[in-house]
Amino acid sequence: MQDKFISLAHGNGGRYMRELIATIFARHLANPLLDTTSDAVALPLTDGDIMITTDGFTVQPLEFPGGDIGSLAVHGTVNDLAVSGATPKYLTLNAFIEEGLEVAVLDRIVASLARAAKACKVSVVAGDTKVVRRGEGGGLYFATTGVGVRDRALHLGLDRIKNGDRILVSGPVGDHGIAVMLAREEFGLKGELQSDAANVYPLTKALLALPGLRFMRDPTRGGIASVAHEIRQASGTGLRLQQSAIPVRDPVRSVCEMLGYDPFYLACEGRVVAVVSPADADVALDVWRKLPEGKDAAIVGSIDASTSHVILETELGGERILEELEDDPLPRIC
Amino acid sequence: MQDKFISLAHGNGGRYMRELIATIFARHLANPLLDTTSDAVALPLTDGDIMITTDGFTVQPLEFPGGDIGSLAVHGTVNDLAVSGATPKYLTLNAFIEEGLEVAVLDRIVASLARAAKACKVSVVAGDTKVVRRGEGGGLYFATTGVGVRDRALHLGLDRIKNGDRILVSGPVGDHGIAVMLAREEFGLKGELQSDAANVYPLTKALLALPGLRFMRDPTRGGIASVAHEIRQASGTGLRLQQSAIPVRDPVRSVCEMLGYDPFYLACEGRVVAVVSPADADVALDVWRKLPEGKDAAIVGSIDASTSHVILETELGGERILEELEDDPLPRIC
Repeated sequence: MQDKFISLAHGNGGRYMRELIATIFARHLANPLLDTTSDAVALPLTDGDIMITTDGFTVQPLEFPGGDIGSLAVHGTVNDLAVSGATPKYLTLNAFIEEGLEVAVLDRIVASLARAAKACKVSVVAGDTKVVRRGEGGGLYFATTGVGVRDRALHLGLDRIKNGDRILVSGPVGDHGIAVMLAREEFGLKGELQSDAANVYPLTKALLALPGLRFMRDPTRGGIASVAHEIRQASGTGLRLQQSAIPVRDPVRSVCEMLGYDPFYLACEGRVVAVVSPADADVALDVWRKLPEGKDAAIVGSIDASTSHVILETELGGERILEELEDDPLPRIC
Repeated sequence: MQDKFISLAHGNGGRYMRELIATIFARHLANPLLDTTSDAVALPLTDGDIMITTDGFTVQPLEFPGGDIGSLAVHGTVNDLAVSGATPKYLTLNAFIEEGLEVAVLDRIVASLARAAKACKVSVVAGDTKVVRRGEGGGLYFATTGVGVRDRALHLGLDRIKNGDRILVSGPVGDHGIAVMLAREEFGLKGELQSDAANVYPLTKALLALPGLRFMRDPTRGGIASVAHEIRQASGTGLRLQQSAIPVRDPVRSVCEMLGYDPFYLACEGRVVAVVSPADADVALDVWRKLPEGKDAAIVGSIDASTSHVILETELGGERILEELEDDPLPRIC
């Protein structure tokens, strides 16, 4: 492709759009199922429940330490399938490209998306591109829909959670939120912290054999506190979290203290929160800690039917209620 | 929901986002499979090939005579499944909402999307919403991914097209492009023309039993001329189209003459182009004309291996080559 910048003609259904799709999207994402001349594609699927999920991505800046909007669009959707107990298989991809975006940036991001998909063993089987006018898009937005297959005998869900169940987290929280924030010039801060954005399927797969596994979720927008509130709302049961048990990296803690953020509300993009029966909690922790993705895993709390709140037991021995997120600590981090 | 305008807090993963989803999206789109508390959903599917497709929508204005971005997001994706020979079953929905959008407009559009989905007999089973900053979105963008089921014995495709096959169109072309254009104040024109945006599944289903059915496509971006070029590129065979046979409504013709547009390059959102064997072409035409959606159907041309071009036989008895679309006659019409 000879053009240096995306123009409206790249979205018009004609030759320029065909060139854009051929030289960037189809080139990086090539796989036996992707046919840019067909309207729909047949999915080869193995036996099991066919699971579907979808997610939109508007992160700013488009590239940040540890990832970019391309790799994030893969991990975000793959992870939603993984925490539901499925094996991720296929993705569809929508790109909303702003007129004026550098073609080199788009090429780099789609290449990154393709690498992430390959690492996650998912194929991008269908896609669509739209070009919007300058000033009507933040450079590039993606939407990805994921299809996976889940064992029909597997039952996970908020409705399986019982009083006394343990809450585990697979690693430090808040890295993604702070890494993206530090990549924004507006904050005037610099840091070497990497986003935790990653494929969580190795973590979720490792727990599927445990009969005491009740529920898994990736703590993205709204962080671990928002997952706790989702559990509370769906189960009608309170939770207790131990502040000292929740892993937080030092640079995340420092930035949060400096700017008044609470790391428990910040997004992760490569962590899993799991609810596990008391009998299986230690086994689950052990399984996770043996994986590179779970070496910092921890048991961080439990379901407590004696309260209807999300209670944080502080490091000083006190208690405070973790309220549901209202205002927006860090917009546009995913 | 009490707010009159969308704010960034409606995208932050907390209480405001939950309210937005509950009071607008979940309320209108409610169906037994849609569970806003789950990460992924299991799809009940009947036997057959599982087909998937995806499409993005950025039409301006958001509402136009005959439809809006909500109904369009359903019809566009349902139609891609339909022309591939599938029965549309499920949709996923991504919304990119610009800060400042009127809540009443969003509510009206999601209600319209829900009505279109119901009429097409598809369920929206998963969704995601993102809010982008004022000036970083055109009010509202949608991406929809569709899943359908296709008879395993059905084989349609560009590779099945043979020399001499007939080309049919199910109705007048260009209505959608011109209706959207007239809805834009910038053109200073007014008209009562309605978009043709509609579900084409009744049209595609009606032809599936014909052994001579080779290929179907909906002529959206780039119009019927671009479908002709897709056929030419994939088959390596030229086409002849008879100008006088291609149905064009009078108001579309008038606006095109006034502004210098060619209706054959303008988008339809409720038409089907079908390639059918010579033996079955008249039957196909008859089948379509008996349907309300196909009463103006016509045989408009044929595959002609003696040329490598898309040739238009003009009303005056001449010939001209319909070139592949390069510049953008009407951006943002889908």
